[in-house]
Amino acid sequence: MILTSKNNPLIKETAALKDKKARKEQNLFLVEGWKMALECQKSNFEIERVFVAESYQGEKPDCVVTVVSDDVFRFLSDEKTPQGILCRVKIPDCTPQKPTGKCLLLDGVADPGNVGTIIRTANAAGYRAVYLTKDCADPFSPKSVRASMSGVFFTEIYRGEREEILSILGEIPLLVADMAGENVFSFAPPKEFVLAIGNEANGISELVSRRATHTVKIPMQETQESLNAAISAGIIMYVLQKDSFRN
Amino acid sequence: MILTSKNNPLIKETAALKDKKARKEQNLFLVEGWKMALECQKSNFEIERVFVAESYQGEKPDCVVTVVSDDVFRFLSDEKTPQGILCRVKIPDCTPQKPTGKCLLLDGVADPGNVGTIIRTANAAGYRAVYLTKDCADPFSPKSVRASMSGVFFTEIYRGEREEILSILGEIPLLVADMAGENVFSFAPPKEFVLAIGNEANGISELVSRRATHTVKIPMQETQESLNAAISAGIIMYVLQKDSFRN
Repeated sequence: MILTSKNNPLIKETAALKDKKARKEQNLFLVEGWKMALECQKSNFEIERVFVAESYQGEKPDCVVTVVSDDVFRFLSDEKTPQGILCRVKIPDCTPQKPTGKCLLLDGVADPGNVGTIIRTANAAGYRAVYLTKDCADPFSPKSVRASMSGVFFTEIYRGEREEILSILGEIPLLVADMAGENVFSFAPPKEFVLAIGNEANGISELVSRRATHTVKIPMQETQESLNAAISAGIIMYVLQKDSFRN
Repeated sequence: MILTSKNNPLIKETAALKDKKARKEQNLFLVEGWKMALECQKSNFEIERVFVAESYQGEKPDCVVTVVSDDVFRFLSDEKTPQGILCRVKIPDCTPQKPTGKCLLLDGVADPGNVGTIIRTANAAGYRAVYLTKDCADPFSPKSVRASMSGVFFTEIYRGEREEILSILGEIPLLVADMAGENVFSFAPPKEFVLAIGNEANGISELVSRRATHTVKIPMQETQESLNAAISAGIIMYVLQKDSFRN
């Protein structure tokens, strides 16, 4: 059977997952495209249902599949050029847990693209856990999931209030980026640490700033005042982690 | 006098500068916002005319100023929330010249945001010249200028066909990023070099690839296949330049 109506309840509740409120209510998020769907299946995430467009010919995960008309698929999709496959995936428990190894703290990062890109880089660089304060963009929004390029499936995502996260992180050294800090390229990082990344416009919050044990900076030519938030996060993450890569 | 009509020839030709064709014909581009306008004035770029909205109260560069109604300003603007100030700026001569110092070659980078962000990072990291192949996104589009955060005013921007650029670059060592390359964190770069950044989907072109003298990679955890193009460019640019920063 092919679903052809946008008024079908299953279609309506799925399309609603593009919005944060429905994701919270249904505890589900959307993963689009065959590559992301197959990466998701390799992870510990649980795919609850797969939707494919009538004309879709590619691979799909082993799961309950619902076929919909191409028109209905475009209604479900968040992409400009939909690939014809989309999954509903269960949002995992994001209650903050104690980290093992190096981790990130996103302190009010507001842009969904930045949140996703930072998670992608964190996963590549070997930061296992990413803590997000409640005022960060939702890491399970379509834009953030897409920017994370599967990174969201393979990092531990924790969300909470600042106080709660800082309390869980306890005595682990906390690094922040600030132009008054030490040159990150000559800085010798502690063995374990939390790297905090601040809001795009306002930087690190006062609460997190007060807890910082180390401050690092990326040196810059004087004609450039700042770097893009995801770029500076990427550079610092990798530079602090460089000795962990053997080749 | 306040211009209130979108049909005024000056307004029409200015609004047209959001498109590449008109920028080429008029040899002008748009710079929006007071901060960018003031940075532009500090550079060698020539501001030809400033437009401000009737309600604009902020600083402006010393230049011919045209006041327009807020409605006409929104028509000129490329921003979601216009600041009320916008300049027409002369596009400099971009004919490729021989570089001095480290430089970048953008080899078909297609996304205007990536082009701008890479120019911003290049300027911060001290890459003086950026060569763009003709199939790159236009560095003088509103989106790219905005993402460059003034970087476009302080780097030398050169544009040309691949053969022309490669011929100008001559015997300077050419570095490309490739997952089969040497770990960039242990790589000892030559004193002068050109770093090539490829297209987001297809990477480095064959022509540029054949000329490469060194290949470097950013090591990654196996669950992440790749990094965002602007992120990996940023990491490599900085890591290769780290010894030039004293503190």
